Amino acid sequence: MYHAKAYSTISATSPLASTTIPRRDPTDHDVQIEILFCGICHSDLHTARNEWSSVMATVYPCVPGHEIVGRVTRVGSAVTRHKAGDLVGVGCLVDSDHDCPNCRVDLEQLCPSATFTYNSPDRHETAPVTYGGYSDSVVVDERFVLKVPSNLDLAGTAPLLCAGITTYSPLRRAGVGPGKKVGIVGLGGLGHMGVKFARAFGAHVVVFTTSPKKREDALRLGAHEVVVSSNADEMQQHAGSFDFILDCVSADHDINAYLNLLTHDGNLTLVGAPEKPLAISAFALLFGRRSLSGSIIGGIAETQEMLDFCGQHAITSDVEVIPIQQINEAYERILKSDVKYRFSIDMASLKTD
Amino acid sequence: MYHAKAYSTISATSPLASTTIPRRDPTDHDVQIEILFCGICHSDLHTARNEWSSVMATVYPCVPGHEIVGRVTRVGSAVTRHKAGDLVGVGCLVDSDHDCPNCRVDLEQLCPSATFTYNSPDRHETAPVTYGGYSDSVVVDERFVLKVPSNLDLAGTAPLLCAGITTYSPLRRAGVGPGKKVGIVGLGGLGHMGVKFARAFGAHVVVFTTSPKKREDALRLGAHEVVVSSNADEMQQHAGSFDFILDCVSADHDINAYLNLLTHDGNLTLVGAPEKPLAISAFALLFGRRSLSGSIIGGIAETQEMLDFCGQHAITSDVEVIPIQQINEAYERILKSDVKYRFSIDMASLKTD
Repeated sequence: MYHAKAYSTISATSPLASTTIPRRDPTDHDVQIEILFCGICHSDLHTARNEWSSVMATVYPCVPGHEIVGRVTRVGSAVTRHKAGDLVGVGCLVDSDHDCPNCRVDLEQLCPSATFTYNSPDRHETAPVTYGGYSDSVVVDERFVLKVPSNLDLAGTAPLLCAGITTYSPLRRAGVGPGKKVGIVGLGGLGHMGVKFARAFGAHVVVFTTSPKKREDALRLGAHEVVVSSNADEMQQHAGSFDFILDCVSADHDINAYLNLLTHDGNLTLVGAPEKPLAISAFALLFGRRSLSGSIIGGIAETQEMLDFCGQHAITSDVEVIPIQQINEAYERILKSDVKYRFSIDMASLKTD
Repeated sequence: MYHAKAYSTISATSPLASTTIPRRDPTDHDVQIEILFCGICHSDLHTARNEWSSVMATVYPCVPGHEIVGRVTRVGSAVTRHKAGDLVGVGCLVDSDHDCPNCRVDLEQLCPSATFTYNSPDRHETAPVTYGGYSDSVVVDERFVLKVPSNLDLAGTAPLLCAGITTYSPLRRAGVGPGKKVGIVGLGGLGHMGVKFARAFGAHVVVFTTSPKKREDALRLGAHEVVVSSNADEMQQHAGSFDFILDCVSADHDINAYLNLLTHDGNLTLVGAPEKPLAISAFALLFGRRSLSGSIIGGIAETQEMLDFCGQHAITSDVEVIPIQQINEAYERILKSDVKYRFSIDMASLKTD
């Protein structure tokens, strides 16, 4: 065991602050990683503030962060996939049971015993729960360590590990591509990645936003059209025309308005997680044989596929790079949607803390 | 134009009573049918009582009935598919625009200009709206007239035209078959057909019912297992195990409890239409990448496929045959779910009215 520098919070109402945390020495199957950048996901904030207590209460101290890129510093004796010096990534998962029906089909994210990167019971018992990427290093089973293409900007690569795979996976599985009309609801950390992927897949991409100010940016990111969702006429013009809609909004909103924009057998997939139950009209589903789905990150193999795709197509997240010392201010700005489109923490800043 | 005997209602609160209605003389493309049996669908009751006024207000007089079987008495000069003496069926649709994107892919039920069998603007202007199957005859465009296999009991065949296709279509499209675990929620007119089809397709069939008294009947109809949905322990034993669930319940009920029984990428399809919005937990969809769909009857080609399948597998609806004079009593019994499992009106009774 060794101690790593990190930023943690000690209660739902405390700011994040500098600390040290225990990390295990790499076992035979582990990879030790020097963290270079860590994206800030809204889940970090929800967990730091114990806002998901009904699903998984936060254990304090809490070290968030699951959009990790870094460089391998050391590997265990049995590690075959990675070596010191490699650029790697770690997303929301650091372990799973490897033999449940979900793991067997590369859906580790649905494993009932999945170990999440932070706030998950620590199988190695180095600490009560896992500690995430707001740290200078992390030790992870090699099977959960991804290869990062060498041509990508690392700050913009970090968010691919959560925001990237969260949007890539449902778009890919829905067969989004040439000849398909695809909607992306919400232009934030998730939505802006959805636009980039849908465009790269060759679809006709329409962004729905509540904010007319985002129109130019949506077009720059790759949208063919932008619809201001509060404009009923604009919405009505698209009625029954979408093959697929990716809904990236976590705030309460009227999903039926989007269901009605789907063509027959169209699908709307949620990747945001509104807290309140969604009020869904059965008629919106029946007339058109439409469907409403959820999707959550992706499996490890699919995450590697996404990173490889990003390497081939030079796709990264649009980020604002901050030092770790600005983390609390960044959280407040996330709450105001005041970021284009993801914060990425330059972890070199932790050395001087 | 000629006059046919029928049963109609003249207001949302009036009983159905004997009347005569105008029917058009067959055009070149029409088939005139002597109606032998007509099933009673809950939609008949909703429409007769104007309970769907928010979606489509009822125009009075109203002649319900869209589960029609009968014998061809006359055909127009251009009719090629049917001839006098043929056993035929008519379901929920009697026309569509034939060239919208939905019609072009055999989804006439989703045509924005579909003409429903009753209470739909009458393209031929014989009357303000179409009049349904509670009548001694009907005249229908040959393209909306189905062939009825000769080996089936006609009283039990009538409900196939709505309850049958409504359950056949989503089960078929979901790929229900050997190795699949399938749930049927609700054992009524729709649900009992769902059980028969799912079993005939080779799936493992589990019926969910609120009524323990229905256990024996569910097994007789083809279920392998029966779960009393109010029993939380029984429900929990099936958590995460279903590939597909067909929800046949129109009353308000907790759909999340069933979503949580789906395995990863599982689908729950609604064929009932609860009036109130459904309160759906986003988490139930996200964790498991599950989906919730709606399905509404089927296209004409698919309805013929269903009837042919029923002929091959000797599948009909379990019916209680009544004379038309008992229609109002039957409506009251439907409201109490006091029918196993569909009423079928013997239209010979109308001759003596």
